[in-house]
Amino acid sequence: MRVGVIGGGQLARMMVPAAVELGIDIAVLGESADAAARIAVTTVGDYTDAATVLAFARDVDVITFDHEHVPQTVLRALVDAGVAVRPGPDALLHAQDKLVLRRKLEQLGIPQPAWAEVVDAASLDAFLERSGGRAVVKTPRGGYDGHGVRVVSDAHEADDWLADGPLLAEELVGFRRELAQLVARRPSGEIAMWPLVETVQGDGVCREVFAPAPRSTARVERVSREIAHAVAEALGVTGVLAVELFETDDERVLVNELAMRPHNSGHWTIDGAVTSQFEQHLRAVLDLPLGSTLPIAPWSAMVNVLGGPADGDLDSRVPHLMADQPAAKLHLYGKTPRPGRKIGHVTATGDDLDDAVFAARAAVAFFD
Amino acid sequence: MRVGVIGGGQLARMMVPAAVELGIDIAVLGESADAAARIAVTTVGDYTDAATVLAFARDVDVITFDHEHVPQTVLRALVDAGVAVRPGPDALLHAQDKLVLRRKLEQLGIPQPAWAEVVDAASLDAFLERSGGRAVVKTPRGGYDGHGVRVVSDAHEADDWLADGPLLAEELVGFRRELAQLVARRPSGEIAMWPLVETVQGDGVCREVFAPAPRSTARVERVSREIAHAVAEALGVTGVLAVELFETDDERVLVNELAMRPHNSGHWTIDGAVTSQFEQHLRAVLDLPLGSTLPIAPWSAMVNVLGGPADGDLDSRVPHLMADQPAAKLHLYGKTPRPGRKIGHVTATGDDLDDAVFAARAAVAFFD
Repeated sequence: MRVGVIGGGQLARMMVPAAVELGIDIAVLGESADAAARIAVTTVGDYTDAATVLAFARDVDVITFDHEHVPQTVLRALVDAGVAVRPGPDALLHAQDKLVLRRKLEQLGIPQPAWAEVVDAASLDAFLERSGGRAVVKTPRGGYDGHGVRVVSDAHEADDWLADGPLLAEELVGFRRELAQLVARRPSGEIAMWPLVETVQGDGVCREVFAPAPRSTARVERVSREIAHAVAEALGVTGVLAVELFETDDERVLVNELAMRPHNSGHWTIDGAVTSQFEQHLRAVLDLPLGSTLPIAPWSAMVNVLGGPADGDLDSRVPHLMADQPAAKLHLYGKTPRPGRKIGHVTATGDDLDDAVFAARAAVAFFD
Repeated sequence: MRVGVIGGGQLARMMVPAAVELGIDIAVLGESADAAARIAVTTVGDYTDAATVLAFARDVDVITFDHEHVPQTVLRALVDAGVAVRPGPDALLHAQDKLVLRRKLEQLGIPQPAWAEVVDAASLDAFLERSGGRAVVKTPRGGYDGHGVRVVSDAHEADDWLADGPLLAEELVGFRRELAQLVARRPSGEIAMWPLVETVQGDGVCREVFAPAPRSTARVERVSREIAHAVAEALGVTGVLAVELFETDDERVLVNELAMRPHNSGHWTIDGAVTSQFEQHLRAVLDLPLGSTLPIAPWSAMVNVLGGPADGDLDSRVPHLMADQPAAKLHLYGKTPRPGRKIGHVTATGDDLDDAVFAARAAVAFFD
């Protein structure tokens, strides 16, 4: 079995251990030879170029993704050429275009923030009017980790973006916390879900994840699972799907965003669950039976390494981290430190959430 | 950090996930481009050729091994060239030459089977005489997985081997079971040990491992740890060392063999311990602080996949295995099935040893 991954970032990199362990060959189409997933990069090329992608796909059993940015034209060319593309173009469109997603969720009756497509300052003004004077404005495409997202209180604050086309405007949800429900689905329909997790964001970037989400009500857990299940089925997702959710003060659960691939909210599964999201993604895209999603410990805490030390020297920090936290699981992505960049994460597991959070934070602090 | 591994078998392959996760670059000098560790093979060449090995070692921080067969002349050439070689030639010699090992253990006062160096039929006859008429005869070098081992009751049964040089003769130990104590040691002296395990052999090949070794007395556990600790220190081992032991009916613990690298008896640690033997080996050879060796579950059972299906078709078996045992951890080495060949293993963990053993055996049975 041979899987081809488009994109050479840390998600592709983290698929490598799972592939190696399962005896699956993995090839990566990377942006450069020193991409995070460099050990598996077999082709360096442009994923927006159909010929490059078609050539890469020639000797693999299935194509999957490190990111959601492959153009629909390229995805369709792959499908037309008989390549198994998972998730497929129809599903992926919902992760590529936030307006398409909002429309689809509305049609499915899935709870989400109030939203509108705004095409000019007048329509954004109208949305602000009925939303208490503030709104979140998002570019429908290309945003990630806080990019392409802006909170506005005046319609003209989005003029620059509106010049490029319609935007998504959303109410500012007063949420208690953010959650994520990770689900995997294979083409034959089987679905598996890990426990609901709590995610902590800062500046639009995931900072920490607690698994399972502490002090969740049975209702919130059930609704989150129902939403993720419904989305995965209705969109025909294959592979891992992360559904990012807001939990409101009145215990409603609203869909924030989707990621149609392994996701930061699931990194804890590498060390904290029987089957990691990366192994599960490979199983799912190969249409193999899904593995157990049970946690291996009562609690897992995942803390991202963001930016790294100012002097860029990770290697000198590692021994101190390892000596101080011998049970912490360190993951580094082979990326050059740069302010705000996700360059690694640490997971700690155990019988007590506070202890796990402390251990993971203490480890990551060595990279400050 | 960059580690170079000589040898491209499954042990090198299983170092890859650990390296990728820790952010360590790994390069492998493989026997062929389609070696088990092919994803990390950067050089295809002959590990007995000093020039090849020196060239491979040029851009790595440390050299370590998938096997113990690199000639001493090549190891010394590396050391002379200023390359960090771990474990070093002096330590490795004890894993390469069983007579050297027996002499060293005797000198250290470490319990082992009665033994003798035999140079001809007469000296073997003398050993048989004082050993009840039967003995195990071993070629001092090059044996593995039952090769180079023979039980004889007549001195002339070893004539062919004696023509090539001295042999090691050992008493046939009446043992209750076989154990293995895995230990890691870094150059700065830090040592970490996983729990003692029971190994089940058949035809000289490891079949199953139970961790921790069930129903062990505190004395057997303590003595096994003391032996492994003493051997690792006295030999100056760096990296993982497996000490294979006999437990006798009268609760003595005798050293059978050593492996100076990750070992089949430690494969359970990938899924069953906080730090796997492969991660620990990388930490140790890079002189990084060692990770926690605690099990993540009360019991782990590891069962080897030996040979594989007669039709050689592993892929068609995998879905059935995964569907039947969703919590079993499957490891395939990317090797072609061949009778008796180690091509993978399955580990199951849990609160009950019998359940774990059942799950791992049930999974492996799909490859029959």
